[in-house]
Amino acid sequence: MKRSAVRELLKLTERPDMISFAGGLPAPELFPLEEIRVAVASVLATRGNRALQYGETEGVPELRDWIAARFRQPGLPITRSNVMIVTGAQQGLDLIGRVLLDPGDRVIVENPTYLALLSAWRPLGIEFLAAPSDSQGIQLEGLDALLLQAPKLLYTIPNFQNPGGTSLNCSRREALVEWARRNNVGLIEDDPYGELRFEGTPAPSLMSLDARLTSSNRQDDRSLQGNVAYCGTFSKVLAPGLRVGWIIAPEELLEKLVQAKQAIDLHTSSLSQHLCYQLLLDGVLERQIPRLQKAYGERRDTMLAALTRYFPEGIRWNRPEGGMFLLVTLPESLDAKDVLQEAIRHNVAFVPGEEFHLNGQGKNTLRLNFSNASPARIEEGMKRLGEVVRQQLSAKGIV
Amino acid sequence: MKRSAVRELLKLTERPDMISFAGGLPAPELFPLEEIRVAVASVLATRGNRALQYGETEGVPELRDWIAARFRQPGLPITRSNVMIVTGAQQGLDLIGRVLLDPGDRVIVENPTYLALLSAWRPLGIEFLAAPSDSQGIQLEGLDALLLQAPKLLYTIPNFQNPGGTSLNCSRREALVEWARRNNVGLIEDDPYGELRFEGTPAPSLMSLDARLTSSNRQDDRSLQGNVAYCGTFSKVLAPGLRVGWIIAPEELLEKLVQAKQAIDLHTSSLSQHLCYQLLLDGVLERQIPRLQKAYGERRDTMLAALTRYFPEGIRWNRPEGGMFLLVTLPESLDAKDVLQEAIRHNVAFVPGEEFHLNGQGKNTLRLNFSNASPARIEEGMKRLGEVVRQQLSAKGIV
Repeated sequence: MKRSAVRELLKLTERPDMISFAGGLPAPELFPLEEIRVAVASVLATRGNRALQYGETEGVPELRDWIAARFRQPGLPITRSNVMIVTGAQQGLDLIGRVLLDPGDRVIVENPTYLALLSAWRPLGIEFLAAPSDSQGIQLEGLDALLLQAPKLLYTIPNFQNPGGTSLNCSRREALVEWARRNNVGLIEDDPYGELRFEGTPAPSLMSLDARLTSSNRQDDRSLQGNVAYCGTFSKVLAPGLRVGWIIAPEELLEKLVQAKQAIDLHTSSLSQHLCYQLLLDGVLERQIPRLQKAYGERRDTMLAALTRYFPEGIRWNRPEGGMFLLVTLPESLDAKDVLQEAIRHNVAFVPGEEFHLNGQGKNTLRLNFSNASPARIEEGMKRLGEVVRQQLSAKGIV
Repeated sequence: MKRSAVRELLKLTERPDMISFAGGLPAPELFPLEEIRVAVASVLATRGNRALQYGETEGVPELRDWIAARFRQPGLPITRSNVMIVTGAQQGLDLIGRVLLDPGDRVIVENPTYLALLSAWRPLGIEFLAAPSDSQGIQLEGLDALLLQAPKLLYTIPNFQNPGGTSLNCSRREALVEWARRNNVGLIEDDPYGELRFEGTPAPSLMSLDARLTSSNRQDDRSLQGNVAYCGTFSKVLAPGLRVGWIIAPEELLEKLVQAKQAIDLHTSSLSQHLCYQLLLDGVLERQIPRLQKAYGERRDTMLAALTRYFPEGIRWNRPEGGMFLLVTLPESLDAKDVLQEAIRHNVAFVPGEEFHLNGQGKNTLRLNFSNASPARIEEGMKRLGEVVRQQLSAKGIV
């Protein structure tokens, strides 16, 4: 299935009669619409001309300061000069690839990994190396074997990964940052979903763990050093249509990223940036996060219960502690693309997991998004999808 | 002067006591702030969830339809499928470069040309060829000599060029599209300033002239064919901080550009797009254009009169019929960078024209922006700048 075919699929899923688990969309009915209405009026009344004018490529200074303060902690000396605003975290990934990668470079990724990272970096002539991984994320003991191929970067979504919904456990995080330092492999930490935790304990970011290695080695920890570039976004916690994300990185790298961005789109929408900043000032983020955690947690629970209730024996899935996705694994004899074709006839859609895999793996997997549909529609859609899977298994003589 | 030095210069010019002719900023006091306040409230009230959600990479369909209708004319069959929305016209240029150009490719540009086009395409490993040009734009008779180097594209700003303020005259436009077709050189028509005409008659776009060649050759003119990709923007006529521009191109090329954009930033701010569309529906563009033409025309007149009044003999400049810039040429013995250094001491800034030139030319030229400062400040700034130039000439024993 080509990328354009996925796009066609996602367009198809916008039909109102379609129950879609295919996209990666937040629930629109949970957007803080009224608060946004108030905030944008406030922005236009108090600093309208700045919000409508060209701005600095690095982003609106107040917003960069806010982000720096949120992530700063003892031993992690993040300041404005370590933060740039990007047009969604996707642009962060594109910029990092353009600045750090050359044709023929190798990049380690989880397998499966985020589809649009592959799309962003493939045109750069990159070769992807699949890190072995399990339900706890990347398996460290498998990484050394990849060193022979001289990887330059390792890209990971440590929290509630897309498509798998898995998270990297704490001890592996520590081991991973040490391994990366030791072997001179740069870490790209993509964290769009970290705030959406329904249960369990938050794990420290790779960026913070890496900074501990720096400050234990160096007296001077007044400026952010390190081996990690961190990508964040307001897309999942405020509203994706604003297209406001950020990169946190050591200043030397950040300056290169800013120079690249200047030639690419000058800067991210000033209005969107000022609006985000006003929402932060108004405390909307702090109210919105628990609201989303509760709602998406319920939706995950509905989906998990429906998997147990409606899906036949021999199907496996994971229980993500947060985020927006889970991955279902069918018996190997089934192809998720066949399931999709039949499911669409019953007005249910998902993305075949193969799209997210390297090396032709994952043909029997389905990525299911649980953030966008209401619990009632999740229940109904999963019922239909379970029936389709049961029929296909039965046609193969498996059940 | 490196690109980052220009950025430092532009930051310096934000000091309130600085009279800056350096940027390319619209006049913020002319932003339709009240109309934007009304329009954004209307967007959030009537289609807030769409304006805050992820959207199609191609852009908001209604906005694409509006742009298609504005440019469509007999023989120029533009439809929604020929239009994509980009994060400012700058992103349009970046996308076109990434999709159409390979390392080692050659591109013809005016000399001088738009600095940020050079910045956007240089990282692609492009070689730029300087087209000879005069006050009427590119000189056609000089182009054939460049064919030996097998140029792939020709990039031009036909209306009120940046930095020169010059426009390509009508007969040269016709000759240029024919030459480009004949020699299989793709045309990139960058038109951010076309609506800002203070006097004279609008000339037809290269895109429309090229389409005439198509429809006279082909029976089937129901879909846009052709050899031109056109970049437009709302930045100069509504507000640049929204970052909404567009590309018009034949469908086959457009689809490739959309695929590239999807991996780069998914899509342009939905809120910005919906806001632009609402402003168009509300008739704001049609009210704003004559307002800007009048104001910027007065500012140009003030600058031209001040050049005559305050500048010594032996200085040349052009009289642009529109846009935001004009170019001043000093005697060859003066270096505009020296003038800048001294001007900044008198709190006046501009960008040395050398930045926009290929082959080390233009050391004695100054790009002056007349859209951003009030007539009174233009008068005062030009008086000081004229004095600096006079002193420097005198120090060289020229006056």
